[in-house]
Amino acid sequence: MTILTISGSLRDGSFNTALLDAAAEELGHEARFTRFDPGSLPLYNGDLDSDEHRPESVLALGDAIREADAVLFATPEYNHVIPGVLANLLDWASRPLGGTPPLRNKPVAVIGASPGLVGTARAQDHLKFVLMTIGARPLGGAGLLVGGALSKFEEGKLVDPETRRRLRELVDRLIRQAQARLEAA
Amino acid sequence: MTILTISGSLRDGSFNTALLDAAAEELGHEARFTRFDPGSLPLYNGDLDSDEHRPESVLALGDAIREADAVLFATPEYNHVIPGVLANLLDWASRPLGGTPPLRNKPVAVIGASPGLVGTARAQDHLKFVLMTIGARPLGGAGLLVGGALSKFEEGKLVDPETRRRLRELVDRLIRQAQARLEAA
Amino acid sequence: MTILTISGSLRDGSFNTALLDAAAEELGHEARFTRFDPGSLPLYNGDLDSDEHRPESVLALGDAIREADAVLFATPEYNHVIPGVLANLLDWASRPLGGTPPLRNKPVAVIGASPGLVGTARAQDHLKFVLMTIGARPLGGAGLLVGGALSKFEEGKLVDPETRRRLRELVDRLIRQAQARLEAA
Amino acid sequence: MTILTISGSLRDGSFNTALLDAAAEELGHEARFTRFDPGSLPLYNGDLDSDEHRPESVLALGDAIREADAVLFATPEYNHVIPGVLANLLDWASRPLGGTPPLRNKPVAVIGASPGLVGTARAQDHLKFVLMTIGARPLGGAGLLVGGALSKFEEGKLVDPETRRRLRELVDRLIRQAQARLEAA
Repeated sequence: MTILTISGSLRDGSFNTALLDAAAEELGHEARFTRFDPGSLPLYNGDLDSDEHRPESVLALGDAIREADAVLFATPEYNHVIPGVLANLLDWASRPLGGTPPLRNKPVAVIGASPGLVGTARAQDHLKFVLMTIGARPLGGAGLLVGGALSKFEEGKLVDPETRRRLRELVDRLIRQAQARLEAA
Repeated sequence: MTILTISGSLRDGSFNTALLDAAAEELGHEARFTRFDPGSLPLYNGDLDSDEHRPESVLALGDAIREADAVLFATPEYNHVIPGVLANLLDWASRPLGGTPPLRNKPVAVIGASPGLVGTARAQDHLKFVLMTIGARPLGGAGLLVGGALSKFEEGKLVDPETRRRLRELVDRLIRQAQARLEAA
Repeated sequence: MTILTISGSLRDGSFNTALLDAAAEELGHEARFTRFDPGSLPLYNGDLDSDEHRPESVLALGDAIREADAVLFATPEYNHVIPGVLANLLDWASRPLGGTPPLRNKPVAVIGASPGLVGTARAQDHLKFVLMTIGARPLGGAGLLVGGALSKFEEGKLVDPETRRRLRELVDRLIRQAQARLEAA
Repeated sequence: MTILTISGSLRDGSFNTALLDAAAEELGHEARFTRFDPGSLPLYNGDLDSDEHRPESVLALGDAIREADAVLFATPEYNHVIPGVLANLLDWASRPLGGTPPLRNKPVAVIGASPGLVGTARAQDHLKFVLMTIGARPLGGAGLLVGGALSKFEEGKLVDPETRRRLRELVDRLIRQAQARLEAA
């Protein structure tokens, strides 16, 4: 069982990247957690989107998603929507990339953290909508809105026990959804 | 009167870039049309978003918007939303960039073209929503949804007379809105 | 196999209601098509949402959804979103109504018709988003955007053969999704 | 100066209705506050939307908006969007109603309260988007997301001083925007 994790924030010390680290710590005994860096991708350009011109990083994105049984996104919220960093990754990931678009039918989940109260609620909705449009399978049920991040992280690490518990519960559900899909296949 | 134009598509032969070219042809006698290339920007990274580290291209974006009296966006539609290329530009353009966020109170308009019937209607709504959230002033009234683009463009040029007429009408309204704002200031 | 159909338009001669009629004609040999009238519901009021006060029409909505194996919505587009008529139905249908919210895990599909070119594309996205949020299972793949309705309907009947073919294909996929779910249960 | 207030919740003891009451208390010396009850409207039906058939309550809605210099909406959040109650009001209010659609160019503001942390953030975005689409002028700047409502209201009254202060500030900005528009006319 492999869970690919993708953070929408490129900065060092990102709360969202730290959320993904915490997920790997909590559930590392149940699944292998991998990471793809969306900062490695070029901005989408249709002229590069062909078998002759596709950049290495884009091929690596396709491989990373195809090798994963589920994908976990952590997104900041900029102007009430997802960062261009994630939007650009989705532009590439929604393309065939030499086969079937890799997110098609893939179990996915969305989490996010922010200093404010809303905890990226609006960006998470936006991301789930795009993932649904692409044909991925967003995890149902309660999500994880981590507001007030300044008091829940210390030195780049999620230290709030209740948030860690809810994170573990959510990722556990994602793993079970991925398992159910493997067994049905 | 300066109108900054921004295309959400980086590929050569883009319908959306051609729409902006046609706008400049139609209204070039009434306003100066400039262009900013969103492909020149790095992916947004909070660590670069400071007076010490801000990249040249980001400073150029701020200058281009501040020097313009209005901004005209042409957007493709990917997965029913705007491309990461534009989302990333908005991430940068919504930041203070050493002063007041440059799109604040700026008259803006949104157009778009696609081969399908929908003519980027969904992406245009998405873009207008983000522009409103940033504090820009989206042009009201009828928009410009250019569907069936394959038959309306030839050799990278908008040739459909009715679309050119409606484009001229829309950009003319944008210019008048920008003039009204100048006069009120 | 029972397919519940719900039209977002209350007017006589509605294109959207006619779309649902055509679906029943095309696939009536494969499934039983039922209809719920959203005009029978009161506006949502939390004070009525209890076992003591729940109106008859609301109970009938819950029963109609629970008895159905899938639900097919046809929506007009008002101001780029769904009508209040449908939003109000979803407010009621997302409540427990004395048990589990009836749309939870239910296969659903969305279609729509309009005189304009966009064919209710924006309202359909909006409706699919709310259905996903409620926990229903929106049908993936190509949707059905019926633009230019004035030339595709005659005397309240869908007469365009290509639209009928695409409608049949979509509803057939919905039926197969509902069957797969029955078999997995 | 008249401010029309509209609550998206019909239940007695609604937090959102209480927010509007508090606005009238705080700014009653600067403007007259009126109220329209969206529960008085029938569900939208195109067959009723004509000069011959328009219901009294719909005419009253048009009059109430036209007589107001600005409109203040308080919205709950159901399934991450606005209630059908408000969606239905907007369906009617976006129609010409025998003249120019009454919300066209009208200064409007959106607030909302909920027991959860998000404070109706997603519904407020949705409402502002629809208002923009209709051609109203949503107030820019910080909004008012009242989360944790259970501890901020007592016996149907907003008692949290900080929330009252922020409410007063927001409504004050709405009044000033309406005044600026009157002076420009």
